[in-house]
Amino acid sequence: MADLTRSPLAPDRFPELPEVAGVRLAVARAGYKAWDRTDLTLAELAPGTAVAGVLTKSKCPSPEVDWCRQALAHGTARALVVNAGNSNAFTGGRGKAAVEAVLAAAVETLGCAETEVFVASTGVIGVPLPTDKARAGLTAAFAKLKAGSTATWEDAAATIMTTDTFPKASVRTAVVGGQTVTLTGIIKGSGMIAPDMATMLGFIFTDAKVAPALLQEMLSAANEQTYSCITVDGDTSTSDTVLAFATGAAGNTPLDGWTSAGADAFQAALTDLCRDLAQQVVRDGEGAQKFITIAVEGAEDDRAARVIALAIANSPLVKTAIAGEDANWGRVVMAVGKAGEAADRDRLAIRFGTTLVAKDGLAVEDYDETPVAAHLKGRDIDIGVDLGLGEGRATVWSCDLTHGYISINADYRS
Amino acid sequence: MADLTRSPLAPDRFPELPEVAGVRLAVARAGYKAWDRTDLTLAELAPGTAVAGVLTKSKCPSPEVDWCRQALAHGTARALVVNAGNSNAFTGGRGKAAVEAVLAAAVETLGCAETEVFVASTGVIGVPLPTDKARAGLTAAFAKLKAGSTATWEDAAATIMTTDTFPKASVRTAVVGGQTVTLTGIIKGSGMIAPDMATMLGFIFTDAKVAPALLQEMLSAANEQTYSCITVDGDTSTSDTVLAFATGAAGNTPLDGWTSAGADAFQAALTDLCRDLAQQVVRDGEGAQKFITIAVEGAEDDRAARVIALAIANSPLVKTAIAGEDANWGRVVMAVGKAGEAADRDRLAIRFGTTLVAKDGLAVEDYDETPVAAHLKGRDIDIGVDLGLGEGRATVWSCDLTHGYISINADYRS
Repeated sequence: MADLTRSPLAPDRFPELPEVAGVRLAVARAGYKAWDRTDLTLAELAPGTAVAGVLTKSKCPSPEVDWCRQALAHGTARALVVNAGNSNAFTGGRGKAAVEAVLAAAVETLGCAETEVFVASTGVIGVPLPTDKARAGLTAAFAKLKAGSTATWEDAAATIMTTDTFPKASVRTAVVGGQTVTLTGIIKGSGMIAPDMATMLGFIFTDAKVAPALLQEMLSAANEQTYSCITVDGDTSTSDTVLAFATGAAGNTPLDGWTSAGADAFQAALTDLCRDLAQQVVRDGEGAQKFITIAVEGAEDDRAARVIALAIANSPLVKTAIAGEDANWGRVVMAVGKAGEAADRDRLAIRFGTTLVAKDGLAVEDYDETPVAAHLKGRDIDIGVDLGLGEGRATVWSCDLTHGYISINADYRS
Repeated sequence: MADLTRSPLAPDRFPELPEVAGVRLAVARAGYKAWDRTDLTLAELAPGTAVAGVLTKSKCPSPEVDWCRQALAHGTARALVVNAGNSNAFTGGRGKAAVEAVLAAAVETLGCAETEVFVASTGVIGVPLPTDKARAGLTAAFAKLKAGSTATWEDAAATIMTTDTFPKASVRTAVVGGQTVTLTGIIKGSGMIAPDMATMLGFIFTDAKVAPALLQEMLSAANEQTYSCITVDGDTSTSDTVLAFATGAAGNTPLDGWTSAGADAFQAALTDLCRDLAQQVVRDGEGAQKFITIAVEGAEDDRAARVIALAIANSPLVKTAIAGEDANWGRVVMAVGKAGEAADRDRLAIRFGTTLVAKDGLAVEDYDETPVAAHLKGRDIDIGVDLGLGEGRATVWSCDLTHGYISINADYRS
């Protein structure tokens, strides 16, 4: 088994997170794997909690993803159940039945509508989630809440992990109509032991009062600039899920449209929170030793800029060059060229850190290699590309490709 | 520097190749790198030789690629010059001038049109090809031909290599209007030391008489099923080039359209030759320990099948699973799901070797793991996917992703 010591890119400590009014957390041990740890997370949500979500575009999604997509249409939530250690993906009718059993157990306890229960699972593909274990775990979690024993954010962030090397969370506040509201998020992803599938699951909780339709628009907009801008290996999970829950307990003037007082502030806080969470996933990328920020400007439009930035971010040759601390800008040229978007070789400029290394279609003669070499020895690597064509820009985040990635994913047999 | 011993997937020996009437080969040492080996290859072609080509779709192509695209419009060739050790890509006006110098030297010797001279270069990106070295090398090569000293196919196949671990060639014959014609090809690609860019260069020579327009159609059609169906790491070179030359010296009834006698036989031989050459590139993939054939059927159409097959072939998670001899079909499901083409999870079937491991959206219960494990221990791995939707099918070839890939591309500093 691969060595899964804490990523060198992890933050120094878990952040201090306040409680979010309207959210009660519990964790339990369903026993999905032979792990000596909790693996089921329950978030009980106040009646009237608004919900929004973004889900994997995979054509082979898990039944949990199918269910969330269906339930999101109703816009309210009373519970979130997260299973770690088994993704329940590609398990046919038995996987679907397992999800239904979880829904039924929650509905029975809370007396809510089925569509108010959200479920996400992460772990091995192809093994149906054991219904008895899921039900027993959920019952135990509800019992803890009934006894007044709630879990911390750190408990929850740790319980949703699979082979992540550190628990990930973040918090922001925004002022909405004079009232300060809190947005807290937890996320997991990118640590993995074969044959588990790296799944990104993110959950955001706020005490703000937000209409479901607006919450969905805000989350979708934030997603475009955050979760959709990260990559570890270009492989998309069957189970990726980000859900946002707004309990409304803060008592702010309701946010029900983009023109509501505080909507801009809330959106900014949400996007900032999502960016931090997304970047933490990259910082726990399999085998990652360096965190790479790729900023593309001068593209035809923002969409083209993102396609080009992701082509660079996913290139094994660029990622291995960064691992080798090699200012190999030729590989960046290669990745720009293969992206398929408009590019003009003879207008292209590339920088590492703040040093321009290539422009106007050729190397900058006699650029100072000293700051470039120093930059590449660091943990945080900046690559800038200017296409010189238009106003389109995008920033994406990736990590290097190292022997650690191969060790985690190949030097292990299922 | 990475260890570049001969790939374990290499053929046992270099094939026996006959001379192709109308083609004379010479190799020389231009000295592009501090290599103790020849690095410039010249093929002199009989007057009236037809030419066709397929070139990289990169938006940042080398000036050699730009030139070949322009010259191909004229349809005839008298010389091919291949430089190894320097791709001359992303070198602005100086790179263009270097190509022009090579053209001028060949035109002066042969008295041909400039558009009859084809040039390809492979190696480091961003360093202009040294004009003096190129010219001196080419002069030396022409001098050898004048002295009646020609090189062998193996000499040529070895001289176009960069960090390939074995020279690659193949031969086929076809009967055209009662006359047997020969098709011989050499190719390089996929071995690499950073910061060199892996470039695939392939050259096919036939003594058949083929009209340029038909030769182009035939090469393009063969390309779709061969070179466009291989991948080592999903990174597309700035310099990929395949050129086909038909000298006409065999004296066959000319092939000038698809209905010409022997056109089908010629096309079949050409495609078969290209497939062999393309597969040899994968067998020399960086760090490759296993050769993977991925056959997708039941897709909406052939195009969709190829997109899905390439998504599997390029997935780092699938490639590391094969490296780990792990029958991790969940990662195949993941790759099908992310490809973006139509797929129905609940109709999907997957096999490793001849053993069906998943069908109808879930694992085949109690399939025999013994033959699967034995298959995965071998050098040649077959993955089959049936989408169950339509008649579309495609086969692509890839290799596994190993520590060797990281060593070659990261454990080395430019």
